[in-house]
Amino acid sequence: MDLQGDDLTEAVVTSFDGSASERYRTVMATLVRHLHAFAREVELTEDEYFIAIDFLTRTGQISTGTRQEFVLLADVLGLSMLTVGLGNRKPPEATQSTVFGPFFVEGSPEAQLGDDIANGAPGQPCLVSGKVLNTKGEPIANALVETWQADEDGFYDVQKDLDGPQNRAHLTTDAEGNYAFWAVKPVAYPIPDDGPVGELLRAGGRGPMRPAHIHFMVTAPGYARLITHVFDEGDPYLDSDAVFGVKQSLIAGFTEHDAGTKAPDGKTPDQPYYTVSYDLVLATTEETQQ
Amino acid sequence: MDLQGDDLTEAVVTSFDGSASERYRTVMATLVRHLHAFAREVELTEDEYFIAIDFLTRTGQISTGTRQEFVLLADVLGLSMLTVGLGNRKPPEATQSTVFGPFFVEGSPEAQLGDDIANGAPGQPCLVSGKVLNTKGEPIANALVETWQADEDGFYDVQKDLDGPQNRAHLTTDAEGNYAFWAVKPVAYPIPDDGPVGELLRAGGRGPMRPAHIHFMVTAPGYARLITHVFDEGDPYLDSDAVFGVKQSLIAGFTEHDAGTKAPDGKTPDQPYYTVSYDLVLATTEETQQ
Repeated sequence: MDLQGDDLTEAVVTSFDGSASERYRTVMATLVRHLHAFAREVELTEDEYFIAIDFLTRTGQISTGTRQEFVLLADVLGLSMLTVGLGNRKPPEATQSTVFGPFFVEGSPEAQLGDDIANGAPGQPCLVSGKVLNTKGEPIANALVETWQADEDGFYDVQKDLDGPQNRAHLTTDAEGNYAFWAVKPVAYPIPDDGPVGELLRAGGRGPMRPAHIHFMVTAPGYARLITHVFDEGDPYLDSDAVFGVKQSLIAGFTEHDAGTKAPDGKTPDQPYYTVSYDLVLATTEETQQ
Repeated sequence: MDLQGDDLTEAVVTSFDGSASERYRTVMATLVRHLHAFAREVELTEDEYFIAIDFLTRTGQISTGTRQEFVLLADVLGLSMLTVGLGNRKPPEATQSTVFGPFFVEGSPEAQLGDDIANGAPGQPCLVSGKVLNTKGEPIANALVETWQADEDGFYDVQKDLDGPQNRAHLTTDAEGNYAFWAVKPVAYPIPDDGPVGELLRAGGRGPMRPAHIHFMVTAPGYARLITHVFDEGDPYLDSDAVFGVKQSLIAGFTEHDAGTKAPDGKTPDQPYYTVSYDLVLATTEETQQ
């Protein structure tokens, strides 16, 4: 009774003493201490408290099966990249991880090696290929590669009113670990800024741009799941990614080719196209300190 | 590029340097530092990150015009009481503040002094009365008193499928500062635990009970808005309020009376009833350090 200041904080911390797990107790105690320390340090006003309640409520309410505004919020606050860094301590040979982002969708279409997954999305054709390898450089056959990306206008399929997916598929590597698909060349784009996160960026004087990238999520039995991007080395936003996700090792060259020239997979596009090649190296679960 | 650890945190803090206001910059910088320190201290895993994203999303999505799950979350984490304490430094003569809670609704019915606002809600009748005063003990006429409370079953009207409000109204004080209304005697009740906050309480081994109380929000020109409760001195949960909101000075006696006896307002209920009297003392805006 009459709890205030440190006594209040400790009473809330102590209220979790009967937690179902020691981990839960620790996480909640640490969360409560930092939440209270934050409010005390800034002397949070009641008006600001209600603004925050409203902001968080709307962040939940604008989220759908195809838009995840809380992931976006965690992204722009750097929490996603921080968590990625904490959770993925692995050998230097392994491909680095980056943010998951808000645009992954369960149940993407299955593609075969070399398929065009653009499905009519606007943009210049781009052949994306490489191998899935282990840290010894050996191929991983039958690895599951999920990929998704925005089109030339900067939109993911789920941001548009479409009948089917675009630039989104899963495929499995062949016996030599190869993956390959045609999509469109990705471009830099603004993260969705028509919701609460957009308000936050504008109030913070921050830009919404992300450098061009292709998303990958790769899984194979015995290996830690890899969630990453491949970035375009020519992008002007590599040093100002709105979600702090760029790593030097994830940058690759996108090579432009003339119409009518033969691509590495034997196809001869009748328009100018790009190729990019990037190997995705998985660490085993033993090699990864979760 | 390649941001991690403290460099990542400082990059996120710096990203708010162009904020529209210095206050926003300070609040966001402090928020980011504590958010990152929390994640680092507990070594937040990616699984836990996604559990948190899902929890916060559902907390927003279950909220409606009549259910505010984020307020409830702030309540059970003690953030509401902490903010109340930070924002309401006022003279000891003034009535203390406590949590707003998630059940206030804009646009309550207008009542006249002495009206029965229970509107058929289950419970024993209770005459609630007192004066609205300033810190010198002088009456404040025409103060606006909003009140709301749960019924005998522990439910607020908005938790039930009703046509109209129950135990919820606003009225104005008379020339002597008096307010008075009939409602039902409040009882201890569990906060709504069928949503994300209920999951949190159960995982934390915490109970959901709040001691019996009546909500008040009082406003008058020149005075700081008072948001408070009056608690029942006989309640067994006064020392274990799920939202940490009890203050000794807000506890009042509810006196039981026999059926057929005359109440202070001249009415003679034909069933046993309660009376409670509590004066609500407002500090001026000058007396209140916001």
